[in-house]
Amino acid sequence: MPRPSMREQLIEAASDRFHEHGFNGSGIKDITDTAGTPKGSFYNHFDSKESMAVEVMSRYAHGRQMRMLTATATPAVERIRVHFEYLSKDLQQYGYARGCLFGNFGAELSTQSPVIREEVARRLAVWESLLAAALGEAQEAGALASRVDGAVLARFLVDAWEGAALRAKITRSGAPLDDFFTVFDSLTTVPPAAGADSGKA
Amino acid sequence: MPRPSMREQLIEAASDRFHEHGFNGSGIKDITDTAGTPKGSFYNHFDSKESMAVEVMSRYAHGRQMRMLTATATPAVERIRVHFEYLSKDLQQYGYARGCLFGNFGAELSTQSPVIREEVARRLAVWESLLAAALGEAQEAGALASRVDGAVLARFLVDAWEGAALRAKITRSGAPLDDFFTVFDSLTTVPPAAGADSGKA
Repeated sequence: MPRPSMREQLIEAASDRFHEHGFNGSGIKDITDTAGTPKGSFYNHFDSKESMAVEVMSRYAHGRQMRMLTATATPAVERIRVHFEYLSKDLQQYGYARGCLFGNFGAELSTQSPVIREEVARRLAVWESLLAAALGEAQEAGALASRVDGAVLARFLVDAWEGAALRAKITRSGAPLDDFFTVFDSLTTVPPAAGADSGKA
Repeated sequence: MPRPSMREQLIEAASDRFHEHGFNGSGIKDITDTAGTPKGSFYNHFDSKESMAVEVMSRYAHGRQMRMLTATATPAVERIRVHFEYLSKDLQQYGYARGCLFGNFGAELSTQSPVIREEVARRLAVWESLLAAALGEAQEAGALASRVDGAVLARFLVDAWEGAALRAKITRSGAPLDDFFTVFDSLTTVPPAAGADSGKA
């Protein structure tokens, strides 16, 4: 296997640092120390910490396996649930201490950096549109309990997930993600005897 | 009206600074400059920026009018909705740019400060328990559409609200709060003809 380039090493190190210590808590020297590269290497590859953060977000987005949402062999609600379970395991891997990088950057940097704020907004909008398509598919198939419009529900679920990931980080616990799944199921799962007495979510 | 004490002036200035620029984006000199007090005044009143942040959270909690949730003359679901509408207006007042102070501190400081992380967790837990009591009251009265346990739903709504407030901050828009209210209504409002064909949330 070829060695990763110095640029890749720097992005990987910055991903770890930013995710754990935040943008302002990660100096350029912290990043180059973590990467094991000379401090001067940073400006050979990046204009600024901000432009590096945009690349880190791109790398993070790829790791979130959003293609899970568009694979069509599995019913849409199941695909969405498996996707959130995958994200949940990713948070668990770090003892829930890291949260979601998009949410972290959004909370920390929305006032400080319009570039990062807009990139976070764009990334969340891409995610939400894939979710909306899957929810629309379920709704058309009569396989979604909620009658809320698919696009609204998709945006809401993205926000509810970000809130749950944030509280998981605050409480160092997976319980907020369990709560998310409980309400997710009540919003999505069509009751066995729909139309009878059991239709409430 | 008596002039506010220097201590109160400092807390008010820190509330504004922390909420808009974050904890790490607010130096002690920024706070004393905003308060119009000498820099040395800070350490006459506070041990550290961290202990000041705890007091700022207390002040913020009082401003959130949580007693709205416990007033009993109004039906519980209506009380909860009016409470969230109040919080929504508070976010709107600053062009949605500030977000919720609890969520901001949780996202920015959970790794950096165990003291602040635990205080945010405690404050959210208090809020959630008041919500849970109101939701339980509605559920007992048969006035809640969702069959999800009141305590779970309360925790979920707190997290979903924090996520919506965060996205409002990222997008500088009230649309995420509108989405929250749409799904909130679907989870809470009992359909007129419950038991017939229309029971799904």
